[in-house]
Amino acid sequence: KSSCLKLELLRQGQKLSDVDFLVDGKRFEAHKIVLAAVSPVFLAMFESGMKECISNEIVLTDTDPEGFENFLKFVYSGGLPDMKHVVTLVNLADKYHVLALFDLCVDFMGKTLNECNVSERLQLAELHGVASLKTSCLDFIRDHLESVSSSEGWARIVGDLRLTSQVAQALQSTPVETTTPEEFVQVSETKELVCQTPVKTVQWSIKWATVLNHELLRDPASP
Amino acid sequence: KSSCLKLELLRQGQKLSDVDFLVDGKRFEAHKIVLAAVSPVFLAMFESGMKECISNEIVLTDTDPEGFENFLKFVYSGGLPDMKHVVTLVNLADKYHVLALFDLCVDFMGKTLNECNVSERLQLAELHGVASLKTSCLDFIRDHLESVSSSEGWARIVGDLRLTSQVAQALQSTPVETTTPEEFVQVSETKELVCQTPVKTVQWSIKWATVLNHELLRDPASP
Repeated sequence: KSSCLKLELLRQGQKLSDVDFLVDGKRFEAHKIVLAAVSPVFLAMFESGMKECISNEIVLTDTDPEGFENFLKFVYSGGLPDMKHVVTLVNLADKYHVLALFDLCVDFMGKTLNECNVSERLQLAELHGVASLKTSCLDFIRDHLESVSSSEGWARIVGDLRLTSQVAQALQSTPVETTTPEEFVQVSETKELVCQTPVKTVQWSIKWATVLNHELLRDPASP
Repeated sequence: KSSCLKLELLRQGQKLSDVDFLVDGKRFEAHKIVLAAVSPVFLAMFESGMKECISNEIVLTDTDPEGFENFLKFVYSGGLPDMKHVVTLVNLADKYHVLALFDLCVDFMGKTLNECNVSERLQLAELHGVASLKTSCLDFIRDHLESVSSSEGWARIVGDLRLTSQVAQALQSTPVETTTPEEFVQVSETKELVCQTPVKTVQWSIKWATVLNHELLRDPASP
C-alpha cells in the first residue's frame, strides 16, 4: 500500500521520529506507533514505563546493523526484506513477535536449504520451535547426509545432543548398509558420533543405537 | 494490509497518540507520523514550529465529528470510508492534500449523481477545480433540467453567477423549443434567470443570450 511506502520514506528521511535504536554504534530513528502496530512486544514496551520508553533510546546487543535495517524496512513497508539477513530477521521477528516476518523467514529457509545452511537452519528451527522447518531440515539431512556431514555447519549438530538425537531418528528411515557391531561400540563409547566417522558407520551406529535404545539417542530434555 | 489495519486499531484504542483534534467539542487522538505519511500538509505542519505542533492540539472549525472520524479511518486503514460523509471527506481531502481520498470522493460523486445532489456537487467541483466532475454534473443537469431545476439544491446554482453561466453553456447543446423574444428580454432584464421561470423559457433565453453574446452568459471571472 502506498501509505505504508510513505511511512518507510519518512523513516528513511528521519522525519518525526520518537524513538532511537542503537545497534553496534549505529543509530536508527523510528516511530513508536509504527513499531507497536506490527509488534505486541513493542506495544507493551512503549505503553509501560520501561526505561527504554522514558529515554526513547533502545540499545540492542543481540543483532547487527544491516539485519536490523532490513527488519525496520519490513516493519514499515511490509515489503520483502533482503533474505541475505534471514538469520538476523528470524531472530528479531521472534523476539518482537512480528508474525508475518517470522512466517516469511521460515518459509524462505525451508525452500532454500542446501548443504551449507541446513545445519544452522535446523538449529534455528529448534530454537524457535518451528516443527515444519525442522522436518524439512531433517529430511534434507537424511537425503544428503554425505555432503551435509562434511560441511562446516555440521559441527552445530554434533555439538548439540538434542539435534544429534533428532538427526539420528530421521536417519532411521534410510536404508543402512551393514557394518560390524564393533564399529558401533567404538562410536558410541567415544561419543564422537558423527563428526570424524564415515557416514556409513554413522548410519549403522544410529540404527543400532535405536534398536538398543542406547543413551546416545535419548532425548536430553527427558529425565 | 494488515499492518495498516493495526494502526487503525491502535488509533481506536487511543494508544500512544501524540496529537489531538478537537471537532465540535469531540476529541480525536491521532499520531503525527501516520497523518504525515498520507498528507504533505500535516507533514509540513508537524515539522514546522507551528502552534498546533507545540500544543499538540488542533482545533478544527470547518468540519464535523462524524465526517472527521471517517477521514481518520481512511488515513489509518486506507479502507473505504462511509460515503454518506462524502462532502466533508472531499473538503478534508483537499485541505490536507490526501490525493487518494480526494480521487475516491470525486469518483464516487460522479457515479452517484441525482436530482437532489447534482447542484451541490457542481458547486464542489467548481470549488475544488475538478473538471471531470463538473462535466458530469453539467451533462446530468442538461439531461434532467426539469427535475433538477425544481429540486431544493437548485438555489445553489441560481445563487452563483459563475455556475449559472456554466449551466447555460451546457444547455446550448439541448434542443430548444421556440418562445418569443419578449420572454427573453423579460428574463434577461430582471436577471431572475432560472429560478422562478418555466424551464422552456430558461432554455430559450439561454439560447438567445448565447447568440447575442449577452452579458447574462459572460463569465463573471473575466473582465
